[in-house]
Order: sequence, then structure tokens, then C-alpha cells
Amino acid sequence: MIDRRAPNADPPRSGFADLFLRLQPQMRELDRFLRSQLSAFEPEIRDPVEYCLDVSGKRIRPALVFFSGWGVAEPMASELVRAAAVVEMVHLATLVHDDIMDGADLRRNQPTVARRYGVDVAVLLGDALLAHAVNVAAQFPSTEICRVVSDATRKVCAGEIAQTLRRGDAAITMADYRRIIGLKTAELFRLSCMLGSRLAGFEDGFVEAASGFGRRLGSAYQIYDDLADFFGEEKRIGKTLGTDLSGGKVTLPTLVLLDRLPDKERDELIGEIREQRSPSLERRRALMNAHGVFPAVADEVRVELGAAAALLAPWAHREPSPMLLQLLDLLQSQVNSLSAGVAA
Amino acid sequence: MIDRRAPNADPPRSGFADLFLRLQPQMRELDRFLRSQLSAFEPEIRDPVEYCLDVSGKRIRPALVFFSGWGVAEPMASELVRAAAVVEMVHLATLVHDDIMDGADLRRNQPTVARRYGVDVAVLLGDALLAHAVNVAAQFPSTEICRVVSDATRKVCAGEIAQTLRRGDAAITMADYRRIIGLKTAELFRLSCMLGSRLAGFEDGFVEAASGFGRRLGSAYQIYDDLADFFGEEKRIGKTLGTDLSGGKVTLPTLVLLDRLPDKERDELIGEIREQRSPSLERRRALMNAHGVFPAVADEVRVELGAAAALLAPWAHREPSPMLLQLLDLLQSQVNSLSAGVAA
Repeated sequence: MIDRRAPNADPPRSGFADLFLRLQPQMRELDRFLRSQLSAFEPEIRDPVEYCLDVSGKRIRPALVFFSGWGVAEPMASELVRAAAVVEMVHLATLVHDDIMDGADLRRNQPTVARRYGVDVAVLLGDALLAHAVNVAAQFPSTEICRVVSDATRKVCAGEIAQTLRRGDAAITMADYRRIIGLKTAELFRLSCMLGSRLAGFEDGFVEAASGFGRRLGSAYQIYDDLADFFGEEKRIGKTLGTDLSGGKVTLPTLVLLDRLPDKERDELIGEIREQRSPSLERRRALMNAHGVFPAVADEVRVELGAAAALLAPWAHREPSPMLLQLLDLLQSQVNSLSAGVAA
Repeated sequence: MIDRRAPNADPPRSGFADLFLRLQPQMRELDRFLRSQLSAFEPEIRDPVEYCLDVSGKRIRPALVFFSGWGVAEPMASELVRAAAVVEMVHLATLVHDDIMDGADLRRNQPTVARRYGVDVAVLLGDALLAHAVNVAAQFPSTEICRVVSDATRKVCAGEIAQTLRRGDAAITMADYRRIIGLKTAELFRLSCMLGSRLAGFEDGFVEAASGFGRRLGSAYQIYDDLADFFGEEKRIGKTLGTDLSGGKVTLPTLVLLDRLPDKERDELIGEIREQRSPSLERRRALMNAHGVFPAVADEVRVELGAAAALLAPWAHREPSPMLLQLLDLLQSQVNSLSAGVAA
């Protein structure tokens, strides 16, 4: 096995460190499980699969699986690892394909799969990862896991397609945006929480609450991510910024800006979006700062996080609840650290 | 529903007409089933999904499912329709992604999904089709169907990746070529025959024979397809020719040519392949004709078809066998009709 860099089980960022430290045993198991899957891939493609596992994300979705099933012992603990691997592989597949579309160069400060192996391999590698995710899902005793995983995967794709088809469309509404992020991001967060709580054997009421929590957290996370695409620091975020802007994607910061601009400037912005002639990131950011876009969008994150917390309130006595609630604080602090950059 | 052109249930080509006429009821059911799946896709993506079903292929893999389970009554007949839909959706997903990579303009004389909706939508649409194929597979009572479908899908991708990684590689051997077509094409043919015979309730021995038959037929079909990429007529084949040549893919016709050229000309061809500076299709075809490439490759098809027939010989009394054997004759006649073009 090629030892390219430190394994991903390490806590990805200092902000997450405290909470994710508690997940170290599970993440180590997940890492071991994912690496054991390499041998299931044909020898010809193990190298790109391994590269993809190495450059992989922050393992947020696996964390959701583990936290949602918190406190469970064997044999359920192993089932959580398997479920976490399934959602992570689905997520990795979508990342590999997303990076093709965004034309992004970097992912976690490493060249994307498309940059490293070419677009064609990236298309196929995403497919292979998707297929293998389902294969692992099919190793659970019933077909339910396959059904919910494939259902969520189709929804993620539908959300991405809807967003792609509306590139350069300035007529997109808040409802459209909500629907898109609900499909492309919140769905997999929801699935992660559902699988974790379900496989841990919690009652239907809690599974439903945890699933709803996941959905809200997913929406909040996507809004944060869209905000970071304008207001983040490339080095901290670990990926190319401004890709939404240059790709003609209209996300919440732009929607809020459209809403707040005087008529003449709004028409100008609509023209820019339609003809996909985007200004520099700095200029757009300056315009957003002038119109208070950051606090307005940050407020939307806060609303989602509040709704997520409310769903868990009746289940405060369940073991996963305190862990899940801490995730809300974490995301809020991420948003706050962006705002420090805005003030500067 | 948009009525863009005649439904696909019609026999696709006069050569296939006689045999495929016998499948008309099943193909109608398949068409109905596939169209009923449209509502399972999010409204935002139904249009591209429907376009993809319309432009879809020759339904060879569903035919294999139906022929391999020939003679079966309800409720198994409905299971065959569902299995046929699964393999067809997997196949459609790979077609959509293949067309991106080949940069092909046409598929069945219609613009490819990538041309019509853009590459980004094509990437995601393939993913959504794959996810939905698995979702339908997960509706069978046991997880076995999901397992074999996802396993075959990963193999198909691995074969495609292996081929992609070796573009412009003149050192590719016959064994490499066999392995690649075994994964990228024969695997889904094998799966189709396996599912058909298995769901129809045949004994393990026959299921195994039918699966082996499918694998051999798949290899034969891919060799034929690679031959047609050089020697076909664009109008008859319904897709852009010469894409292997221009894409730097080394397939059997080129391997045979390499083997037959005198040293100096071989070095020249190796240089062409390495630097991916391909000559016109006509020039390459002329060189192939001068060295008897066509009959040599056609012979390889014949060998595969013979091996496929031999596998079914002990099972001549099973209902599917005569139907499956006729497919061998059909493919042979397809090869013969190519050779008519060579003579001209």
C-alpha cells in the first residue's frame, strides 16, 4: 500500500478536534474498513481508489452515523462502521464527480482526482465507488439499507442536476435554492443520522427526530459552505474558492445580494449572472459587504441550527443527543470564524 | 410525456427482427416498466431521464434476460421484466458516461445526452440512473440481486478505467485486451443471463452454463463492436465511427495489425499510437485491409461464438437454449454484413 500522507483518521481541523477526538476509535475502525475494501476493487483501479480515500473529506457523514448511534456496543458498533463506510463512499463518489463539474484544482489542498488522473478516469472512478458503496450496503441482512442508500443517492444527483440546469439563471428563488440544497446535501446528512440511530436500535420516534436533525444540519452546512465559497480563506478551507461565482451558480449569498440591491445595480447583477461574466471574487465580496450579505446569510444558518436543536429537544435523555447537539455549536463556530475574516 | 419519436420497443434493426419479434410482449412490458420508473425520479430530472430512455440502445441485455428465462410464467415473468430493467438502466448509465469520454456526437442517430444537456448533466444523470437501477434491484426480496448487480457494475467501471488508463499505450497485449473486454462488456452480458436463468428457477448447472454463455457472447459482441468501429457504416451502426482510433484506444483490429506489420511500419504505427496522432479512418482501414486484419478479427468472434455454443450443448433440452443459440447466429450474420462492406 502506498503511504502518500498521514491517514485521514486524524482530526481534520483544530476546530473539530475536541469533539472528533471522541470518535477516534470509530474513525480508526472506519479507516481500517475502507482500506480493507481496496482489495474488492480490481487491481487496475486500486491506485486511483486509494488516492481518492486519501484525499477524502472531513468524514462529517461518518461522524453523523457514529454520533446518531452513540453508546451502542458490538455487534451493532460494527454495523455502524459499515454504514459509515457506505455513506462516505457515496459522498466520495459525488465529490469526485463534483470536482469535474466545478473544474476545481484542489480538494483538501491536494489535486482533485480529475486533475491527477484525468476527467475520464474521474467519471468512471465515481461510478465504481458508487457501485461498491451499494455492494457494501447489500451485505446487511435486509434490502432496506440498499433501498434507502440508493434512494438518497438518486436525490443527491437530482439536486446537483437541478442546480446545473439552472446555472446562469437569475430567476432562481429562495424556494428553488432550498429544494436544491435539500436534495444535494441535506439528504445524505439525513441518511447518515437515520442509519446510525436505526442500526443502533433506537425507537422510531428518535430515528425520525435524528433524521430530521440530519436534514436541518445538512441544509445549515450547505449554506455555510456557500458562504465560505465567497468569504472563506482558500488555505483554511482546503479548496478553490469562488467556484460558484465563476460557474454561474446562484447560491444564497447572491440571492440575498439580489434582494438588497437597488433596481439599477440589481439589473446589472442579473445581466452578469445571465451572461456568466462574473467579476473578481474581491469585487463581488466588496459588493456583498456593502449590503450586509454576510450577517443575513449567517442568520439563515442560525435558523437551521435552531430548528435542528428543537427536533432533538424531546429526546435530550437519549445518549446520541448531547453529541449531536455539540455538532451544531461546532458549525456555528465555523460560521463565526468566517465572520472574523469579513471584519478584517 | 413527450412523444419525441417512436417507442424503443420496436425491433431495432431488420437483422434482429425475426428473433426479436418473439420478444415483443416482454419488450413492451419492459418499456412500460421503464416509463413507470420516470415518476420515481425527481421532477427536475425526468426530462433528461426520458430522453435517455428514448435514445437508448438495442436492448440486447434485456433480451438476454428474457431468453435466459424463456418459457417461464407469472409471477416469475414479472421478475424477469424487473431484472431486465435493472441491467438496462445500468447499461444506459454506462452509455451516457461513455459518450462523454468518447466525445461522441451521436447514439442511435440522435445527439448523445452529453451533447444535448451538457457534460455536467450527463455525469450526474448517469449517476442517478445507476442509483435507481440499484433501487429497483433492492425491491427483490433478498439482497442477492443488489450484490450481483453492484458487483458487475464495479467490474464494468474497472474495465473502462483500465482501458482509459492505457490509451495511447502500444504495449497492450492480447491478454490485456481480453481482460478489459471481459470486464467492460462481458460482465453485464453474463449478469443478464445469470439473472434470467436464476429468476426463472433453473437448476444451478444451467444457470452456470447460461452465465458462461453470456460472458462468451459479450466478448464476441465487443470484438464485433471494435471491428465495426473501423469497418462499419455510420448510418447503419447509428453512432460515430472511428472513436477508438481518434481516442487512442488500442482494440483488437489494431493489435492484429501491429502483429502483422513489418518492423519499420510497426514502429511507425507504435509512434502514431503513443503520440495519439491518428491518421484518417480511411487510411487506417486501407492498411488493415492490406494485412488481412478483418478476417483475422472476425475469426476471433467465431471462436468466442463457438465456445458459447459449446457451453449450452449439454443443456439443449432446456427451453432457453434454442433461443440463446439463435443469438449466436445473429451476431455472426452481423459480422458477415460488415465483411460485405470490406469486399466492396
